Amino acid sequence: MPRFNPRVAALAPPPIPSVFAWAKDYDGSQGPLIDFSQAVPGYPAHPDMLRWLGEAAASTASSGYGPIEGEAGLRAAYATHVAALYGADVTAGNIHITAGCNQAFIVTMMALAGAGDTVLVTNPFYFNHETTLTMLGIDVDLVPCDQTTGFLPDLGALKEALTPKVRALALVTPNNPTGAIYPPDLLEDIFSLCKANGTWLVLDETYRDFLPGGEAPHALFSRDGWQDTLIGLYSFSKSFCVPGHRLGAITASPAAVAEIAKVMDNVQICAPRAGQIALEKALPALDDWRADNRAEIVRRADALKVVMADVPDWSIQAIGAYFAYIRHPYADIDSAFVAEKLAKLAGIICLPGDFFGAGQDAYLRFAFANAGVEVIDQLRERLRTFVLPGI
Amino acid sequence: MPRFNPRVAALAPPPIPSVFAWAKDYDGSQGPLIDFSQAVPGYPAHPDMLRWLGEAAASTASSGYGPIEGEAGLRAAYATHVAALYGADVTAGNIHITAGCNQAFIVTMMALAGAGDTVLVTNPFYFNHETTLTMLGIDVDLVPCDQTTGFLPDLGALKEALTPKVRALALVTPNNPTGAIYPPDLLEDIFSLCKANGTWLVLDETYRDFLPGGEAPHALFSRDGWQDTLIGLYSFSKSFCVPGHRLGAITASPAAVAEIAKVMDNVQICAPRAGQIALEKALPALDDWRADNRAEIVRRADALKVVMADVPDWSIQAIGAYFAYIRHPYADIDSAFVAEKLAKLAGIICLPGDFFGAGQDAYLRFAFANAGVEVIDQLRERLRTFVLPGI
Repeated sequence: MPRFNPRVAALAPPPIPSVFAWAKDYDGSQGPLIDFSQAVPGYPAHPDMLRWLGEAAASTASSGYGPIEGEAGLRAAYATHVAALYGADVTAGNIHITAGCNQAFIVTMMALAGAGDTVLVTNPFYFNHETTLTMLGIDVDLVPCDQTTGFLPDLGALKEALTPKVRALALVTPNNPTGAIYPPDLLEDIFSLCKANGTWLVLDETYRDFLPGGEAPHALFSRDGWQDTLIGLYSFSKSFCVPGHRLGAITASPAAVAEIAKVMDNVQICAPRAGQIALEKALPALDDWRADNRAEIVRRADALKVVMADVPDWSIQAIGAYFAYIRHPYADIDSAFVAEKLAKLAGIICLPGDFFGAGQDAYLRFAFANAGVEVIDQLRERLRTFVLPGI
Repeated sequence: MPRFNPRVAALAPPPIPSVFAWAKDYDGSQGPLIDFSQAVPGYPAHPDMLRWLGEAAASTASSGYGPIEGEAGLRAAYATHVAALYGADVTAGNIHITAGCNQAFIVTMMALAGAGDTVLVTNPFYFNHETTLTMLGIDVDLVPCDQTTGFLPDLGALKEALTPKVRALALVTPNNPTGAIYPPDLLEDIFSLCKANGTWLVLDETYRDFLPGGEAPHALFSRDGWQDTLIGLYSFSKSFCVPGHRLGAITASPAAVAEIAKVMDNVQICAPRAGQIALEKALPALDDWRADNRAEIVRRADALKVVMADVPDWSIQAIGAYFAYIRHPYADIDSAFVAEKLAKLAGIICLPGDFFGAGQDAYLRFAFANAGVEVIDQLRERLRTFVLPGI
């Protein structure tokens, strides 16, 4: 019998379905399931967004093939949005639309690096970044981030890791899994290091719309020559509550967009069109709604801080736009075991730190922004009374 | 400045947009543009399909993440369809839904082979198959197909090419670009060769719904142990006229589906959901409509045969479910030059043979099924009066 690609065969099954499987054994005794696993805002898409999606999907005009790089209207609308947010000179030619931000990451990486090249990510990392690179045969080097630096990369360590063989550095801010928000100054320094080393800086900002202040996350898109070093990734899934429509975006030089389009043509020709057409309308129209959601998610973060302060032996190690990185009280116990028991016995689904890299067993990732304040409040009792079996 | 992946940088820009660019220079003097480039049936999707798409897209239920392998309902409906078409025992666990058939190809190939492995395709090949493999660093070996064998692979040549290092053989039937329909007996023999060599046989049947008789294309899915050798690819885009919704499918062993799901999780988590939900309804409901379209496309093929018989020095070398492989009269002239002039001067957009492999300059690919009989009829005069400049 023929073999599978050993680089794929060696990967564990996708993490999210494994975690959902644990939750199936929960008996409901502690109340309804609290789902802090995959990042999915608990509120629905705006009614106008749903209407625009329905209209576009029902139209013959959107049922044909579209441009590889994305609908011209959405590229322009998103460029306008990015230009305004960052105070930068970004136009439609800088934008490539993708089917979600995982796809934005893989097509960007394929355009930048191939098997045998090296890409640098942080530890902990977003698991799909690591598996994407590994299955492509790209060597993954790690920059350690821990609680002593607030889960931010140390510049000295980064400088040492940026050898000439490193094609790209991939960072996530606000971070997944830790929630850490990378300060603009740090990003400036990292950009300079990457530029000096001839390394692409790929910045995944999937969660930037939930930053507490709603301010520009950094000024990198205003730097001279940013296009020769920086590539920005974004997801429409979280902000517009439409992950099932699979839409993301890349901000890059026109030269990088052209390389990414070659990859995209092979990966799926173009992102699905109906959602793109709807988003072109939604991007300018739903600003207030998105600001309200941002405020709501800040309330949820505050609620989590209050709750966790009341639970002995559990603590928030980092918290950001969407995620909190939680230290559980069971030193020397596998985080996957703790997460499995939390799901099965306490009805709390979250991801074990172990999914995000080596040495992360002390932690759990809570996608706290999934749930409203009244649900977050229920954590207090469930965690206080939780007993890990066999301890 | 950091470099791009040289394997991607070396690829030509995506072919279809290049061809559309030629058409922009056409002055309309010969009548409306005839688009035989990308395979896009000239009729719209069924009104019920558009309605189902609109309803699903407007629903909150489809805006969340879905299962990686595809909607359970569509996997079951498509399995039922495949089982009936091939008279085979295929169930939902054999199905993985993708965002179109290009994606079905790349995620399958990534699950089977990595950089440094070898995959065999025919020459001529579907260009995206070749570029997909090349950009992944997979070595591409070629089995020659020419007019002496009706553009079918020669079993002797195939046997010789199937060395132990060949991980997979990718075939397209009905073929793109030639239109050649691989006879069931030939496919049986190829399957046996692959099985004996421990090589995956990946069969892209994007155009099978337009086979003249509507009969089962082959009996491979009924062979004992097919799951250990065969993987079938399919596109909903052509049959349901919904390429903009990006939907395709893979038929494989549950073990292969599990490997492909690992890849898919990294490529885009899941295919867009609204189209999947609509297709679950459309697959059983639109059988008669699809049969009518099949008959219409057979009429178009017949019309093309009549027309081309009237045009001196041009000839159909092969014709199948959707494409015809046309020999043009300009020996020793690059096919891209001929296709460019046909677009600019005669308003006929088609793809040059050169896009599909070495030694194909005598040919052009006509996606004849895009246009109705009355449009195909206009070819007669345009080709008879066409003069290649500078000859």
